[in-house]
Amino acid sequence: MSQIHLDRLDRVRAAMGEQGVDTLLLSVGHDLPYLTGYLAMPLERLTMLVVPRDGDATLLIPRLEAPRVEPQPGVFELEPWDETDDPTAIVGRLAAGSGTVAVGDQMWARFLVELIPHLPAATFRRAVDVVGPLRMTKDRAEIDALAAAGAAVDRIAGALQAGTIPLVGRTEAEVSADLSARILAEGHQKVNFAIVAAGENAASPHHHAGSRVIREDEIVLCDFGGTMDGYCSDITRCVFTGDIDPEVAEAYAVLHEAQAASVAAATVGTPCEDVDRVGRGIIADAGYGEYFVHRTGHGIGLEEHEDPYIVDGNAMPLAAGHAFSVEPGIYVPGKWGMRLEDIVVAADDGPRPVNSAEHDLVSVG
Amino acid sequence: MSQIHLDRLDRVRAAMGEQGVDTLLLSVGHDLPYLTGYLAMPLERLTMLVVPRDGDATLLIPRLEAPRVEPQPGVFELEPWDETDDPTAIVGRLAAGSGTVAVGDQMWARFLVELIPHLPAATFRRAVDVVGPLRMTKDRAEIDALAAAGAAVDRIAGALQAGTIPLVGRTEAEVSADLSARILAEGHQKVNFAIVAAGENAASPHHHAGSRVIREDEIVLCDFGGTMDGYCSDITRCVFTGDIDPEVAEAYAVLHEAQAASVAAATVGTPCEDVDRVGRGIIADAGYGEYFVHRTGHGIGLEEHEDPYIVDGNAMPLAAGHAFSVEPGIYVPGKWGMRLEDIVVAADDGPRPVNSAEHDLVSVG
Repeated sequence: MSQIHLDRLDRVRAAMGEQGVDTLLLSVGHDLPYLTGYLAMPLERLTMLVVPRDGDATLLIPRLEAPRVEPQPGVFELEPWDETDDPTAIVGRLAAGSGTVAVGDQMWARFLVELIPHLPAATFRRAVDVVGPLRMTKDRAEIDALAAAGAAVDRIAGALQAGTIPLVGRTEAEVSADLSARILAEGHQKVNFAIVAAGENAASPHHHAGSRVIREDEIVLCDFGGTMDGYCSDITRCVFTGDIDPEVAEAYAVLHEAQAASVAAATVGTPCEDVDRVGRGIIADAGYGEYFVHRTGHGIGLEEHEDPYIVDGNAMPLAAGHAFSVEPGIYVPGKWGMRLEDIVVAADDGPRPVNSAEHDLVSVG
Repeated sequence: MSQIHLDRLDRVRAAMGEQGVDTLLLSVGHDLPYLTGYLAMPLERLTMLVVPRDGDATLLIPRLEAPRVEPQPGVFELEPWDETDDPTAIVGRLAAGSGTVAVGDQMWARFLVELIPHLPAATFRRAVDVVGPLRMTKDRAEIDALAAAGAAVDRIAGALQAGTIPLVGRTEAEVSADLSARILAEGHQKVNFAIVAAGENAASPHHHAGSRVIREDEIVLCDFGGTMDGYCSDITRCVFTGDIDPEVAEAYAVLHEAQAASVAAATVGTPCEDVDRVGRGIIADAGYGEYFVHRTGHGIGLEEHEDPYIVDGNAMPLAAGHAFSVEPGIYVPGKWGMRLEDIVVAADDGPRPVNSAEHDLVSVG
């Protein structure tokens, strides 16, 4: 892997030069594994990659975690710190004299608060401006990894739609645990989420699966995904436990049309916000506009949510290799909710959905 | 729960007054649920509780997550933001004029980077100075919750020591999955970690359980815990798959003595660093000093790791209600490692270990 990491680091340094960034600081989050293969543990002991624009990168790491790191000469120098050291002071020393310091999004604010007095003259900005554009454009191997993870959750969605996963009479939490076990059994190393929301609970887009028992004749929204060989899956399908209620069927037809139209609109060169606008317009024209309360989608890769965001106000044009979700939803508080989600990769010959599980609202009654 | 949250908020405001903090900002992490019962999702959409020293608290939340929040009039006002809003600008407005702003440790650095230009005159510091002392001192209900979670992992440790959990011939990852399933089956809602490290892998304190097959006649270190009804468990026991090697037995006797002595030293009024010193001295006197590469322990409660840290340099005296791990270890690179860990609560009548699983190195072979 060292060659891949060296190449990425070269491109990061070029971006730092273009943007006037003197030092890049990466801790928890996925910029660090993108550049080094190492994912920092999200703990109070600081792990930090310090990348000067010129000169060697240093991976500062708690001594007890040093055995977890595979050395990569030329990519970074490993600097373990001891329990009684002050790791932010060490970062301050390594970044001394920097005018502009870019920090990873998910670094704990604690470390930035502690670092500011060590670098009183520095201006801080987001590392996503430097590393994000590289991560956004997936290469062949990354797209293959997303496709493999997508195929795995497609099989689970297929089982859900075939009625192989029992719903009626079980709690949302039980079905969520079932989906989680299948995510692992299908080859993911990690479950990221398994939302199961029945009936009126489906009107809460990020509902936490709970003790609510699933009944006959209601919609069940399942949104689940995990991480397989470093890359994420994410899919949403709804099923109906009985003969589909006409009101629900009518709304779902609109949702289905909106989702397909947004996918079709996701061509190279199209601004992200235009992809959002297409599906939102269809939903609004049908009278459900007030019930589509979130953006159309998010980028996906090493992380479940990353750039590019498919949202109003994001004028960035899609480029070949961008991977993102297209997931409009309609949520009627107190009654029901629905969402339909695929991961899509922008390519020169048109949008390529990673997911192909049945898009219709299937009755599993 | 509102009354508990109101009381805690009152005490936080008093601490803000004493420490000259004008505004407290809490996002992901456990200060927020401690004060409101709500745990923010660790996502790119900002959730933030804004607590002015005087005046009403506001919980800023992405609109699509608002249905997850139980309103608590008097504790906070709920302010949902829309996908095209700029939530850090809203925080900047709510905190306008603040001289000193305390931010939660685990807030994403991204949001602090974005907030700084909105509050150019503000000085930032860690919210842990304000909320930490409250969280550190557990009340009766919190201690009961820690005890219940501890009893659950004690049962799993007992199964491990009884040989009920097969080891030889399985991979570390398989045993880790087995421990994880048992953590859930014993009543935890969440698995936080399940380290399984065999033989030479046990010399890496935070080893990631992998494809290494466990053999006969070696030490197996298991360090596992989860969250039950909001509070964390954490225990480490080692077993030996065969007749215990004399070299290992000799070191373990030292470790066992050191751990027991540190627990006994953890009386109310004793500085944290003295608890560390007691066990470290015993290990050093026996000639293993260089192999004990980490602090003695960490506080535990809503979070796996929180104040107080049992580490050299922490002169803070223990108080009744402090809960923390006591977990010395000896790690000989390339050969073997061992750690022995209990959770302990400081009380006026002496240290009360939460865990009581057998402390000897048990042969399971």
